[in-house]
Amino acid sequence: MAARRLIVDVHTHVYLPRYANLLRSRTSVPRIVSAANNEDSERLLILDHEPSGGRPVGAQYWQRDEKLKFMDMHGISMSIVSSANPWLDFLPASEASKIALELNQDLEDYCETSPNLNGTRLQRLYGFGLLPLVPEITTSTLLETVQQISQLPHLKGLIMGTKGVGKGLDDPALDPVWAAIERAKLTVFLHPHYGVGGNPWGEVENGHVLPLALGFPFETTIAITRLILSGALDRFPSLRILLAHSGGALPQLSSRLASCIHHDPLVASRLNHDARYYIGRLYYDAVAYGSEELEFVSSAIGRAINYSPDGKSAVDIGSRRMMFGTDHPFFPPLSATEKWPSVTENLDAIEGVQTWSDGEKDGVLGGNALTLFDLQE
Amino acid sequence: MAARRLIVDVHTHVYLPRYANLLRSRTSVPRIVSAANNEDSERLLILDHEPSGGRPVGAQYWQRDEKLKFMDMHGISMSIVSSANPWLDFLPASEASKIALELNQDLEDYCETSPNLNGTRLQRLYGFGLLPLVPEITTSTLLETVQQISQLPHLKGLIMGTKGVGKGLDDPALDPVWAAIERAKLTVFLHPHYGVGGNPWGEVENGHVLPLALGFPFETTIAITRLILSGALDRFPSLRILLAHSGGALPQLSSRLASCIHHDPLVASRLNHDARYYIGRLYYDAVAYGSEELEFVSSAIGRAINYSPDGKSAVDIGSRRMMFGTDHPFFPPLSATEKWPSVTENLDAIEGVQTWSDGEKDGVLGGNALTLFDLQE
Repeated sequence: MAARRLIVDVHTHVYLPRYANLLRSRTSVPRIVSAANNEDSERLLILDHEPSGGRPVGAQYWQRDEKLKFMDMHGISMSIVSSANPWLDFLPASEASKIALELNQDLEDYCETSPNLNGTRLQRLYGFGLLPLVPEITTSTLLETVQQISQLPHLKGLIMGTKGVGKGLDDPALDPVWAAIERAKLTVFLHPHYGVGGNPWGEVENGHVLPLALGFPFETTIAITRLILSGALDRFPSLRILLAHSGGALPQLSSRLASCIHHDPLVASRLNHDARYYIGRLYYDAVAYGSEELEFVSSAIGRAINYSPDGKSAVDIGSRRMMFGTDHPFFPPLSATEKWPSVTENLDAIEGVQTWSDGEKDGVLGGNALTLFDLQE
Repeated sequence: MAARRLIVDVHTHVYLPRYANLLRSRTSVPRIVSAANNEDSERLLILDHEPSGGRPVGAQYWQRDEKLKFMDMHGISMSIVSSANPWLDFLPASEASKIALELNQDLEDYCETSPNLNGTRLQRLYGFGLLPLVPEITTSTLLETVQQISQLPHLKGLIMGTKGVGKGLDDPALDPVWAAIERAKLTVFLHPHYGVGGNPWGEVENGHVLPLALGFPFETTIAITRLILSGALDRFPSLRILLAHSGGALPQLSSRLASCIHHDPLVASRLNHDARYYIGRLYYDAVAYGSEELEFVSSAIGRAINYSPDGKSAVDIGSRRMMFGTDHPFFPPLSATEKWPSVTENLDAIEGVQTWSDGEKDGVLGGNALTLFDLQE
């Protein structure tokens, strides 16, 4: 069994040393603070009103050896590593554009010098670069950075938050960027950071539970829905978007979304397809922690073919667009020596999907990622 | 086939004449405005920044004959009618407590004088009352209103928004209210109105699509999750809560929620069960517009038994906790003569669930509601 199971982690983060140092240099969120200039006591503050003074961070967050150790502990062959949120969102445009280029090169080096995957020409680490997506950035700077990423052989896509250059992903100003990403065959990994606005979480002390369990997936759902409603998936039919956390709430709300669009002729007239078609145009990590959730997401993806006039641009086997992930180094185990439940639960969830064949499970565990990222042994 | 299919609509609204008049008397949202004192031109504004000057409203929103005509057109035998949002949220406490009692009596009359259900001792209309859930209301006023509802024989529960008395449903001040509702065996129909805060919908003109398709279910999901995290479902083990729109995003995020709770010992220690247990403690309308969504919700409900130490307080057949609904009179058809797609899609969705037996489908269409509301022929 072990032989056939190549496990690829598509949702795994790093704060590259250059980025961690940037966070250490800051006096407002996001930042890394240290109680006594002691790296063991460092805490990361990335959200406003971070509960409990932020979360403890250490080598897991930046050292490549720790990433590889984590992979070995859990039988993960390969990781497609991405910078963690909030990326460069807080920087002025000039600074963001410079450090984006540097971090992309750092990540290329991080991957290029990683160990070989046994008996193949592949390596164990590949990466998602990032763009300086901040207000006042010029389109040409964004296009140059897309160009840089596309020329770095170990970067297979780019991770992106939900703000665009300030107005969200449905901003027409991003059209040239989508066009360039599509042309370069890069995959966009769409990832949340901000949750939802206001203070919907109330006064009861619930730690990070509500913003992480609900706010994060809601943010991703809103961002991708706005992108769909803008017609971008029609204008860029080959654009590849991988959604964090199995698409958040998008699959479960997709028929409701279709109904709401149907009742609004203005929005409906802007789109070429039923909302459920676009569900099959996207890619999803399998970071949902439960078999029933994964089975459902695959059925929502597979359903897209019913809304595709030519039966193309969608797959009837929904699992082919789903890929294992861990969210490492977040959600560490409560005890330092055990396997990470965030890994074992997501592996068990894949194993437990009753309607998936062994071949489909292998695909979700690793094969689908090799195909998407064109990593052929 | 027609004989065995008793269809009960558990999600269907009314603006009772007294309430419509209240909205007509107002000068700020929520309100009903009329272009020229002409009822045919009335428009309802219930959301801030209502697109297109509000939605057209007419007899469908208040006249009982229109409700019955709608039911006849679609083969709906019985409706459990509830006031539509935003209920009494905008009133000062003294006014809210008075009109709540009046509206509950109005709804009792509306139901009591409705036609008999052929050949039974039942009637075609039953109702959900409402409580004056506003800041500064006294607990004793709330308890008196629960008492009133429990004594009105055609009211089978009460509809509730997500604000509680201002601090949300996890406010400890509501504990006596939950206790009284539980004791009276009333069902709480939890329904959204506000969506999520801030302006997450962006600048592109999308009409009502985003706040309705995403904001509404997100709001319900946040409210019920906060209630779960407060431990209320442990403290009130027989409390019956029916979630609008099939629970919004709660089922799809329930394993993620369980994982986030597991990683927060403080929250975990407050709860008797894994988050997925509570999914099986709730009831869900079947207003999701798609078979795959319904099938998934039922599997998430049925899964609860795996997290129930004694195998009780949850059902292994998840569909038993799901009930047909229409959301009438919202989402009218684009042409006045056709059947309402919001009805036919939800009926088709139930019919299309591949893993449900005919008996289960009958249950979702009507039988489960008869059981929950103790409506025995």
